[in-house]
Amino acid sequence: MQSLVYHGPGLKTLEERDKPLIQAPTDAIIRITRTTICGTDLHILKGDVATCKPGTVLGHEGVGIVDTVGPGVSTFKPGDRVLISCISACGRCEFCRRSMYSHCTTGGWMLGHTIDGTQAEFVRIPHAESSLHPIPDGADEEALVMLSDILPTGFECGVLNGKVKPGSSVAIVGSGPIGLASLLTAQFFAPAEIIMVDVDDSRLAVAQRFGATATVNSAQGDAAAQVMKLTGGRGVDTSIEAVGIPATFKLCQDIVAAGGTIANVGVHGCKVDLDLERLWSHNVTITTGLVDTFSVPMLLKTVQSKRVDAKQLITHRFKLTEILQAYDTFSRAAETKALKVIIEV
Amino acid sequence: MQSLVYHGPGLKTLEERDKPLIQAPTDAIIRITRTTICGTDLHILKGDVATCKPGTVLGHEGVGIVDTVGPGVSTFKPGDRVLISCISACGRCEFCRRSMYSHCTTGGWMLGHTIDGTQAEFVRIPHAESSLHPIPDGADEEALVMLSDILPTGFECGVLNGKVKPGSSVAIVGSGPIGLASLLTAQFFAPAEIIMVDVDDSRLAVAQRFGATATVNSAQGDAAAQVMKLTGGRGVDTSIEAVGIPATFKLCQDIVAAGGTIANVGVHGCKVDLDLERLWSHNVTITTGLVDTFSVPMLLKTVQSKRVDAKQLITHRFKLTEILQAYDTFSRAAETKALKVIIEV
Repeated sequence: MQSLVYHGPGLKTLEERDKPLIQAPTDAIIRITRTTICGTDLHILKGDVATCKPGTVLGHEGVGIVDTVGPGVSTFKPGDRVLISCISACGRCEFCRRSMYSHCTTGGWMLGHTIDGTQAEFVRIPHAESSLHPIPDGADEEALVMLSDILPTGFECGVLNGKVKPGSSVAIVGSGPIGLASLLTAQFFAPAEIIMVDVDDSRLAVAQRFGATATVNSAQGDAAAQVMKLTGGRGVDTSIEAVGIPATFKLCQDIVAAGGTIANVGVHGCKVDLDLERLWSHNVTITTGLVDTFSVPMLLKTVQSKRVDAKQLITHRFKLTEILQAYDTFSRAAETKALKVIIEV
Repeated sequence: MQSLVYHGPGLKTLEERDKPLIQAPTDAIIRITRTTICGTDLHILKGDVATCKPGTVLGHEGVGIVDTVGPGVSTFKPGDRVLISCISACGRCEFCRRSMYSHCTTGGWMLGHTIDGTQAEFVRIPHAESSLHPIPDGADEEALVMLSDILPTGFECGVLNGKVKPGSSVAIVGSGPIGLASLLTAQFFAPAEIIMVDVDDSRLAVAQRFGATATVNSAQGDAAAQVMKLTGGRGVDTSIEAVGIPATFKLCQDIVAAGGTIANVGVHGCKVDLDLERLWSHNVTITTGLVDTFSVPMLLKTVQSKRVDAKQLITHRFKLTEILQAYDTFSRAAETKALKVIIEV
């Protein structure tokens, strides 16, 4: 089968691999119909993710059709259309019982990381029963690809951890796919203000179209001062960090109101400064988290009922044979204006 | 009246001052019967608290008897015995309505900070109706002095923010008065383990007497490794920072379990490192907070019903005329084994 394989920092090839086989009774083999590329895949290719070894097929998002199942799988059968969670979870360990699937003792983020992923014709899914979701009849598969990772990440790690509430004020720092996913799902809770911050005017224009009440270009002047001005000097109840660098985490600290929450969503490669000499008395909460994907069934209902239009995150479409071109388009997002790219298999 | 006055870094004198007068209709003048010294007073004397100006009477804890009240005060009358909250609060502003009294727009931590405090014969209490608490008949005044600041601080900023739960594991870094207040009040929620960490064996012995299930001397070997060993390599669900320096905040990060909470209680004078390159995916929560004292009426019931023995925090007693000696004893705690010192007026 065709597979996009990571071969160490900066190196990837589209190559022929053997179709994966059932290894454990709880496995399923899925024939991928659609997958996508994540910012995390670019992190891996930069060499930021040491736990991903050369030789791994990349990708942790996708939808497909069940090809074969192990003898321990009874809720899915060959031919079923399924949505793949980026998090594999046994459903039984201490962490799974607390819905902390990302910390499953025999699962977590494995796909395209510690085992072969979804940027291929077939993928093996461990713990299939608690790591796949059935796709309802008539659902739009392209929209559902956004539910593997990006929408639950923006929702769980940004909106829920950030305690977005009716009438509250929110700033989302970073208007990339994850920041936009937070923007879309924050609106479930009717905040009064959602201020989007980015360095790219075209991404801020997208944010405005997606429901932002104000935008701040942080490349032009003091972003913190602009957010403070927009909030009457008060700061925001929720600041969502959706970039993953020290400067954006600092901005989140500078704009959070007393009693507010900083929800970190960004993947960080180095430590950051925490201004405790000021924040110790500021009654703030800071949260971190890898997505658990416990919200996927709920988000699927919001997509089906059109409470959220997940498909508007998709800007480009490619075939699996064109995946190198898709990576190129996705990694030059400032020029190509790419958000999410769909890879059809 | 006799008053302990701050005169700039390192300088304090016991001196004669005029008795305070009612300045606003909502003020009350309290004749202090008992007060105490807080670690924060030592911070002020080190020059760490720039907002406290020379000439201020120190002290933000105490009990006393109402001397006079302004025309707007109807719930207290001269002769009433009262407990003074370290936080003055109007009860009406945006923050007070959310029980965030420490951020009251016309109150907050004022006593012994931005206005004259309680280490004197009399003190003026602004917003008296929402900043004083009636003392029940027969209550032990010495124990109640612990309710002005230390017990609610340990409880609200440590135990409640830290989400201590039945069966959970807790580490408290710092076995001084505030850490011990967290230890005493954490036991309301029946955690399975409470590990106390300090550099001083005599304070750890106190912690053991107060209910710690294990103690770790961080001056002897790798404290993080010891806590990880005590928790089977898992870390603790709650780590409470009750010191206020970068090294202790670092330790809290090193020992918190996935899904756990770091509750910062310590007063920090400088920024700290936040290890987001590791913690971003660790699903942790970090909280900060100045005490709001919303829990004082509840804590008063726990003291009255002997659910908590607040009096055991008191190690020394002095008269107001001996307050310089009391400061000396309190500031040399490692030698004198002082926890809280009572100043009788």
